[in-house]
Amino acid sequence: MIKVGIVGGTGYTGSELLRLLALHPQAELKAITSRGEVGQPVADMFPALRKRVNIAFSEPTFESLKDCDVVFFATPHGVAMAQSAELVNAGIRVIDLGADFRLKNTTEFEKWYGMPHSEPELLGQACYGLVESAREEIKKAKLVGLAGCYPTAVQLALKPLISHATPLIDESSIVADCKSGVSGAGRKAAVGSLFSEASESFKAYGVSGHRHLPEIEQGLELISGRKAQITFTPHLVPMVRGILATTYVKLNEHGLNTDIQSLYEQHYANEYFVDVMPKGSLPDTKSVRGSNFVRIALHRPQGRDTLVIVSVIDNLVKGAAGQAVQAMNAMFDLPEHTGLEQLPLSP
Amino acid sequence: MIKVGIVGGTGYTGSELLRLLALHPQAELKAITSRGEVGQPVADMFPALRKRVNIAFSEPTFESLKDCDVVFFATPHGVAMAQSAELVNAGIRVIDLGADFRLKNTTEFEKWYGMPHSEPELLGQACYGLVESAREEIKKAKLVGLAGCYPTAVQLALKPLISHATPLIDESSIVADCKSGVSGAGRKAAVGSLFSEASESFKAYGVSGHRHLPEIEQGLELISGRKAQITFTPHLVPMVRGILATTYVKLNEHGLNTDIQSLYEQHYANEYFVDVMPKGSLPDTKSVRGSNFVRIALHRPQGRDTLVIVSVIDNLVKGAAGQAVQAMNAMFDLPEHTGLEQLPLSP
Amino acid sequence: MIKVGIVGGTGYTGSELLRLLALHPQAELKAITSRGEVGQPVADMFPALRKRVNIAFSEPTFESLKDCDVVFFATPHGVAMAQSAELVNAGIRVIDLGADFRLKNTTEFEKWYGMPHSEPELLGQACYGLVESAREEIKKAKLVGLAGCYPTAVQLALKPLISHATPLIDESSIVADCKSGVSGAGRKAAVGSLFSEASESFKAYGVSGHRHLPEIEQGLELISGRKAQITFTPHLVPMVRGILATTYVKLNEHGLNTDIQSLYEQHYANEYFVDVMPKGSLPDTKSVRGSNFVRIALHRPQGRDTLVIVSVIDNLVKGAAGQAVQAMNAMFDLPEHTGLEQLPLSP
Amino acid sequence: MIKVGIVGGTGYTGSELLRLLALHPQAELKAITSRGEVGQPVADMFPALRKRVNIAFSEPTFESLKDCDVVFFATPHGVAMAQSAELVNAGIRVIDLGADFRLKNTTEFEKWYGMPHSEPELLGQACYGLVESAREEIKKAKLVGLAGCYPTAVQLALKPLISHATPLIDESSIVADCKSGVSGAGRKAAVGSLFSEASESFKAYGVSGHRHLPEIEQGLELISGRKAQITFTPHLVPMVRGILATTYVKLNEHGLNTDIQSLYEQHYANEYFVDVMPKGSLPDTKSVRGSNFVRIALHRPQGRDTLVIVSVIDNLVKGAAGQAVQAMNAMFDLPEHTGLEQLPLSP
Repeated sequence: MIKVGIVGGTGYTGSELLRLLALHPQAELKAITSRGEVGQPVADMFPALRKRVNIAFSEPTFESLKDCDVVFFATPHGVAMAQSAELVNAGIRVIDLGADFRLKNTTEFEKWYGMPHSEPELLGQACYGLVESAREEIKKAKLVGLAGCYPTAVQLALKPLISHATPLIDESSIVADCKSGVSGAGRKAAVGSLFSEASESFKAYGVSGHRHLPEIEQGLELISGRKAQITFTPHLVPMVRGILATTYVKLNEHGLNTDIQSLYEQHYANEYFVDVMPKGSLPDTKSVRGSNFVRIALHRPQGRDTLVIVSVIDNLVKGAAGQAVQAMNAMFDLPEHTGLEQLPLSP
Repeated sequence: MIKVGIVGGTGYTGSELLRLLALHPQAELKAITSRGEVGQPVADMFPALRKRVNIAFSEPTFESLKDCDVVFFATPHGVAMAQSAELVNAGIRVIDLGADFRLKNTTEFEKWYGMPHSEPELLGQACYGLVESAREEIKKAKLVGLAGCYPTAVQLALKPLISHATPLIDESSIVADCKSGVSGAGRKAAVGSLFSEASESFKAYGVSGHRHLPEIEQGLELISGRKAQITFTPHLVPMVRGILATTYVKLNEHGLNTDIQSLYEQHYANEYFVDVMPKGSLPDTKSVRGSNFVRIALHRPQGRDTLVIVSVIDNLVKGAAGQAVQAMNAMFDLPEHTGLEQLPLSP
Repeated sequence: MIKVGIVGGTGYTGSELLRLLALHPQAELKAITSRGEVGQPVADMFPALRKRVNIAFSEPTFESLKDCDVVFFATPHGVAMAQSAELVNAGIRVIDLGADFRLKNTTEFEKWYGMPHSEPELLGQACYGLVESAREEIKKAKLVGLAGCYPTAVQLALKPLISHATPLIDESSIVADCKSGVSGAGRKAAVGSLFSEASESFKAYGVSGHRHLPEIEQGLELISGRKAQITFTPHLVPMVRGILATTYVKLNEHGLNTDIQSLYEQHYANEYFVDVMPKGSLPDTKSVRGSNFVRIALHRPQGRDTLVIVSVIDNLVKGAAGQAVQAMNAMFDLPEHTGLEQLPLSP
Repeated sequence: MIKVGIVGGTGYTGSELLRLLALHPQAELKAITSRGEVGQPVADMFPALRKRVNIAFSEPTFESLKDCDVVFFATPHGVAMAQSAELVNAGIRVIDLGADFRLKNTTEFEKWYGMPHSEPELLGQACYGLVESAREEIKKAKLVGLAGCYPTAVQLALKPLISHATPLIDESSIVADCKSGVSGAGRKAAVGSLFSEASESFKAYGVSGHRHLPEIEQGLELISGRKAQITFTPHLVPMVRGILATTYVKLNEHGLNTDIQSLYEQHYANEYFVDVMPKGSLPDTKSVRGSNFVRIALHRPQGRDTLVIVSVIDNLVKGAAGQAVQAMNAMFDLPEHTGLEQLPLSP
């Protein structure tokens, strides 16, 4: 049994980790920490876990976590950075669901997150955690900076194209129009996330700059070795879970002569969680809700040279807690879908 | 492995059976029938099942089902009545998620369902399928008329009170104010169930008479041996899944002197799926969504003699497909929670 | 033109007052105050008002309001109590949308609101603002403590019965099962009101005691001169606007011999905003959304002695800002529907 | 008073026309027709109109409409085509909210709507009804083919750019990623529009080809005299009303040297319904809900050469019934906002 700790269990990614790990046949939850809630049973905060998860919150100290094999950080940026070194040095593997170990460039980190990076050396050792892209590195990694939710949806949409040796598209002019459910904003009280504000409404946000933009551009470069340029627009959808990314790319001569559908099907043929849908299909977010699946569909409207790639994930699962468990499974040589076989909840 | 068939798999209870049975460790899906969709893979209709459920719809004939150990009917009323006898006679156990075998009185059936009952004899052998009430009968039953969604929520709310030897409440004057998500109306195209109609609105319906009223009154009498009288008002909530029943009873002298909280806790102490919440709590439907749990809370406002019982279930799980699987588990001597351990999806 | 001021314009009742008053042909908005937002145009906070409401927030001082004919308080309890005397003494009429002047008994006020009442004398002069019940008093009142949202829905549902000289029902045992949209919780950041918490869920709250309980019981006594006893259960509906009250009363011999439908139709025949629906109908909250209408339907299930009264309002309009404008119209001898003719927004 | 008739009043655009016209100070509703509902009061179908709209449905014949000054068609395609000639010949002005008179090219019409155009001559006289673009033509028109909902949002987003004498953008490569509430699908019973399907989900549809694509391309050419090429992707948002279009254009050298914000502000300076928001803003659909307003915001992420234009409308108002009334006002020389002053309903 893998002994697991969670730092920061009072948000949605923390409670989602609990939901998944509680039924994971090879994981044993040893500790969940929260400075503000020490001693409180987690099921008091998350009644959905009543009768099945009996652990209480403990102090966010090394002492609470020192017997773990792996520790997940489900915390705002800055926390994992401050506490990971001690764990890693003690031989405990760390998977950060936050942003501290995603951007490799500390100047970029400081620009987008408004704080200097205090652990540049540790950052150097960290592996970027998009499992389908970095499986082998993750298996050996001591520290994983898990991919963000939007970046997961967009990178998996582009990966078969981008990883091609010669470019198939104009990589300097990609549009990723992304839509997320409100749970992406987390479980913190904020007027903009109130039901009365978000319900029966739709909006774009962060149009002039969002922290996931540099992450996506870095991720694409990691895959292809080439620089790509994205216009990334996030939108808020009046639903709880789900991300849909509509990605627009311009096919070049080479791309126009390629069977893109086959390219995707072959590229993902061995991926348990990636479903390349048949020609003519379109996925909805409900078809992945509560599951770790990604569904992708490809369209070329009017036979013109713009390819439209539609990809869907559950932002709390494949975009956070599920991918974290998938990374843990890879690290501990388990089949990647162990504990992640839940079918989507639909309707 | 229990060999399972489903008749009528194109509605929400059918697809929910698929979701649950696909991961059931002791069940094997042999056939799913639908007159209109013969040959179509179920995953084409329900993309959430893609890559995991590979069966296609077959003809709704005895031939399709004859190798099954148990057959679920997820059909409108009238269908199970017409097809069950042949199966039961062949030694195949039948669990009807519809209404054909709920009401024992054929006159009542005809009054509320607008058609005569064609199988009164079979009806006589049928067991009313509220597992917590009729576990032992279900184990032996050849035919189960599964409890309806509202009746499950209301009967479990009242059972500890009603099953007391001497009445604790005025059993002639119970109010059950019930609220259901829209999936209760099924997957059929109807103007009233459109998103634009049901969303951002709330209404009562069937106030002057709803088919679940006689079922609840019959169920309570089955439990207590005494006649009870209910005012039952269903309401439509702009959400997909979930039922919340607010049940009002007037405590009599005996009831006022009873520790009702303890009564409930003891009554349900050994029930895996029933959670009597601590004093002062109130459940929300999201805390059971996607799971087979029931949560119940008890309040006596202002110390007056009216007791308010709040109970929640997922109408498609404990109110339909989950309870059906629970009944199957009981029939085949499996632990009742086999294949039903999913934690609620929240948020 | 009536010169109008609003104290506390940053919540939903404040912005709803703006929406209604902006198009009121006889009202002129002179000042809207907010301590925290002095100088900010209201349209910056409420973009729906852009290009049509050009006023900015001012200091919440007497100076800001001294030229008004009437001042609305759309503030948490305690504020109107502290600031009304000065206005009333200056001859400015005050309509408090909050709770400070609703409960006549200061002991009850302190019990339910957790603070002593600092203006018992002013409270003595205040008129309880349910317009259909207290029209004549409101016309002369200097200070109105506007009825709460739930109390409006429940009292209008019961008024024709309760105002009958001889009781028609058991007035000691009324059940009011009420359901409200989330805007009732206001525009303050709170985890329980987040979209991810409230959406796709339904719950009861305040079951053991809610501040609107004593207000409803007092209001019914004001109408009938007799004490009534209510079991009042509020619930939270995943929608923004709307209240539906399902009220259960037991008809006595006299009530059973009365034509209740006619009683209601006659009672409300001259009320512009009250719609007694035809026999057999049931209203939904969407049919009053954005409007000041109340719709009421009456049912007697199974011909038994329990009468079910279903009433709907928009909690922000008839339950708050609309009723406030209606009261203002009455005070200033305008037709009550002046500026309140908007038809419901449906779908 | 303008005498008004409506053909096909049982859908959402029909009922929205009723909501707006009922309070229009210069319009008088003479007839509303519906083959299936002759004799039924419209308020029985749309309870939101109870007590305020007293007309009943009549036969969809010329006789019913012959006394009107203007007739609105709120019908599926094919109907207005069949019935308009008789009205136009009788001197009655016709505004078609459907698609029959939008596409000027009958081959294109047949390709996208699957039926030949039976009135090519009438089509030749029809004016394309985007009021901000074709005001002067509409004033004189006998027949208006009102702009569709998506085309309104996209064309108004692009108009200031496109109407520039020398191109400011690459007009051959525009992306319009559009999102609509479910009311856009109309009031017809269809599984895909059910609450349980559309709620808590998000999807793209019609990606490989949607009828509004040729309409947008034609509309842009009407404005600029130049051909433009759009990749148009509609998406379904789990809300009732609202369209948000995120339009991506590539600025050319000339565009990069233009102050785009000023260009838009000046272009729309005299338009009552168009709100060019200040730099840095982003509109949400709720800020126009129930109103005829359009809000537009402009962003150039990272200072790169892609301009992102976000525009919002209420699909049933500015995208249908409101624009129809605006066109009527123009035709009859009324101020364009007559009867259209309602402020958005928010929250």
